[in-house]
Amino acid sequence: MPYFDAASSAPLHPVAREALLASLDEGWADPARLYREGRRARLLLDAAREAAAEAVGCRPDELVFTPSGTQAVHSGLFAVLAARRRVGRQLVHSAVEHSSVLHAAEVHEAAGGTLTEIPVDRTGRVAAGDVATALRPDTALVCLQSANHEVGTEQPVEEVAELCQEAGVPLLVDAAQTLPWGPVPGAWSVTAASAHKWGGPPGVGLLAVRKGTRFSPQGPKDERESGRSPGFQNLPAIVAAAASLRALRATAETGPDEAARLRGLVDRIRGRVPELVPDVEVVGAPVHRLPHLVTFSCLYVDGEALLHELDRLGFSVSSGSSCTSSTLTPSHVLRAMGVLSEGNVRVSLPYGTPEADVDRFLEVLPEAVRSVRDRLGVPTAAPEAPAGARTPEDGSGLVLDTLGKRCPIPVIELAKVIGEVPLGDTVTVLSDDEAARQDIPAWCTMRDQEYVGEHPTTGGTAYVVRRRA
Amino acid sequence: MPYFDAASSAPLHPVAREALLASLDEGWADPARLYREGRRARLLLDAAREAAAEAVGCRPDELVFTPSGTQAVHSGLFAVLAARRRVGRQLVHSAVEHSSVLHAAEVHEAAGGTLTEIPVDRTGRVAAGDVATALRPDTALVCLQSANHEVGTEQPVEEVAELCQEAGVPLLVDAAQTLPWGPVPGAWSVTAASAHKWGGPPGVGLLAVRKGTRFSPQGPKDERESGRSPGFQNLPAIVAAAASLRALRATAETGPDEAARLRGLVDRIRGRVPELVPDVEVVGAPVHRLPHLVTFSCLYVDGEALLHELDRLGFSVSSGSSCTSSTLTPSHVLRAMGVLSEGNVRVSLPYGTPEADVDRFLEVLPEAVRSVRDRLGVPTAAPEAPAGARTPEDGSGLVLDTLGKRCPIPVIELAKVIGEVPLGDTVTVLSDDEAARQDIPAWCTMRDQEYVGEHPTTGGTAYVVRRRA
Repeated sequence: MPYFDAASSAPLHPVAREALLASLDEGWADPARLYREGRRARLLLDAAREAAAEAVGCRPDELVFTPSGTQAVHSGLFAVLAARRRVGRQLVHSAVEHSSVLHAAEVHEAAGGTLTEIPVDRTGRVAAGDVATALRPDTALVCLQSANHEVGTEQPVEEVAELCQEAGVPLLVDAAQTLPWGPVPGAWSVTAASAHKWGGPPGVGLLAVRKGTRFSPQGPKDERESGRSPGFQNLPAIVAAAASLRALRATAETGPDEAARLRGLVDRIRGRVPELVPDVEVVGAPVHRLPHLVTFSCLYVDGEALLHELDRLGFSVSSGSSCTSSTLTPSHVLRAMGVLSEGNVRVSLPYGTPEADVDRFLEVLPEAVRSVRDRLGVPTAAPEAPAGARTPEDGSGLVLDTLGKRCPIPVIELAKVIGEVPLGDTVTVLSDDEAARQDIPAWCTMRDQEYVGEHPTTGGTAYVVRRRA
Repeated sequence: MPYFDAASSAPLHPVAREALLASLDEGWADPARLYREGRRARLLLDAAREAAAEAVGCRPDELVFTPSGTQAVHSGLFAVLAARRRVGRQLVHSAVEHSSVLHAAEVHEAAGGTLTEIPVDRTGRVAAGDVATALRPDTALVCLQSANHEVGTEQPVEEVAELCQEAGVPLLVDAAQTLPWGPVPGAWSVTAASAHKWGGPPGVGLLAVRKGTRFSPQGPKDERESGRSPGFQNLPAIVAAAASLRALRATAETGPDEAARLRGLVDRIRGRVPELVPDVEVVGAPVHRLPHLVTFSCLYVDGEALLHELDRLGFSVSSGSSCTSSTLTPSHVLRAMGVLSEGNVRVSLPYGTPEADVDRFLEVLPEAVRSVRDRLGVPTAAPEAPAGARTPEDGSGLVLDTLGKRCPIPVIELAKVIGEVPLGDTVTVLSDDEAARQDIPAWCTMRDQEYVGEHPTTGGTAYVVRRRA
């Protein structure tokens, strides 16, 4: 049963399992104690720290273990902001950071700090020049992920690190997605990562703070982990996390190149999906990207229904579609990129994914998409005007009322009616679905129609589209 | 090799080990995902929450898992304080709370809150009446441990819960030490606990918040664990924690009474140690106490040396002596109780401790204490005046200069010289060791001498003792 959601959580690496078992017996005691069980635990902890530091590319005394990647981000971010409070309170971050960064940024803003969001292009990539432009005398911190968790696009971390260093501004890199593949390049100040993304156990994050970075841990004092992560260390899991990371790096150096192999499989998906499935947009950078991750969106498809269909067929994937989120809003990453969010599928291959699984996925995907579209009634070649369409009395063009209907219905209705609109005339879609704001412009781009704009209307928003094709 | 420090961290319970192994394979995926691996993880998480809630004595939706007991305390405390900010900012806590409570209280005070510390008697117990007296219209929260982690004394939680309920003030109970033995009694509002104290794995804390408690989680937003504990759940460890807690409760109900058996062994230590070792003070409540924990302090003994000696003999214990702390200050618990801190030993027996191990401990302890005392040169029956003693020119009594000497030397020198002091006259001990402030008065209590008081002096503090016996 193929599991294609490694970017959420990877199955436990065999080395992690083995190390965890061994350290359950050796590493349950308090490493701060002086007796033999404590000294044994201490030795394990020190060895794990050295291994993890080597993989991160820092000194052991620059690295602490936290209970999660999220907590590593939170602790690192607030400690730097506090230490630089006298310099200023501007926090610069990309629009496509992980929610752990964005939610921490919200707290900073609520406490009187200022935020500057760096936009991304249609592939999800930040321009280093935009970061340079955003820096001010009161910039306290720049946050930039090493690669995006939803679309796989790599960010220009090394370049941004260099310009931050020149400006004397610290850079926090969320390396959760790339650390399994290699150390974070460049002159970063703080790096955060999460073990369960590389096949380590859950319950372990890494927080590395380069010497010379001003750092004031917030929250209650605690002696453990250099005062940077409170609470009793999760030692068996820490040992397992470090051992599996070291094993991955050792394999990468001496064994077959798994990254290259997965990149080949992902290239196959990137190339074949648009050939096999009509009306698909593959998103994310085509070259500068994670080796194991590919994301695409399918027009006229309900993301949740497609996930269920793929799950029924034995494939576990995730989605940034609004219908798969508890808040019914599309992924902020897809929104920042301006790409289609409906029918969104993220495939992220775990280490060792068999080629046959990918081929089988490509075999079943077209039928899965078709069956979801059939159930929704996708537009045919010769569309008839749907019941909701009416010509307004003032002659300003067709109005399509989709109020109360959820993604992907508004776009489906629009596609059905566009054939009725005279070339050069407009159609106005009324919708109260948050996804429409993103998907109607994205549909226009894909269909070469002109997106005129939006304005508020009773009970929702009116999206105006001019027929060009 | 007997491990007698269960109160720091208990060895992994066999049920925890088994459950951890099983859930490594079943529970590594994200429980928020809709595919089969996610649903499987969700089922495990839900079952663990039900089991843990039953053991705590609350509803499953009142309980969340945190990465540690420390984080459960921090999150619970700040969320209640924030929710009651309009009522007031007084935080009431006992003087013998765990450092996680005290350090969180310091943060509250630094942010403008007020603290009221409830003293304890010589057994380490809070008087409920003192809590009642401390309550004010602006009391935001009362924090009280269920039993003390250093001396085992149980606190009147049920009584305090009742008076808090009458006053409409929430009560946070740190139940880390008692949850292994039973649910927290009474009408508490918030309870925190830590799995590695009952033989669960590290990396799991419990935070229970009774319905109706005003609660505003602080820090960045996060969807997991009802927004009360950010970061990816440590599911295998959570499953193991819940399974082992349930197993303990099941054994307690149907199997042999392990608490009673351990209580018998601890009674033996409490009774025999003062018979076997001269100049010992057994501390903590004799009846209302944890079943598995006993603490005593040995006059004229260096705690760290005694710990090393016991470790060499195969016994792992901990200590609240200043020389075993990184800050060179004695335990705040022993200080609040006003008992001797030098030569302090805490014995806390894990489940299943063999009787023979306790007997062996009682066999080796007297020689271990004697050898440490011999190395330090303990006072003999007919003491000679030590080199540092001199009679001051103003005729105000003997002055003993122990500046620069660490615990237990100042008390040893005092004991050596007291025979030289005429009955009714005073001896003044000069010391810059923090432990002297606690141990000189404690020595006076043990030796029926009068402790007159202290005053600052050049390079330290002068402690005045009047010879009575």
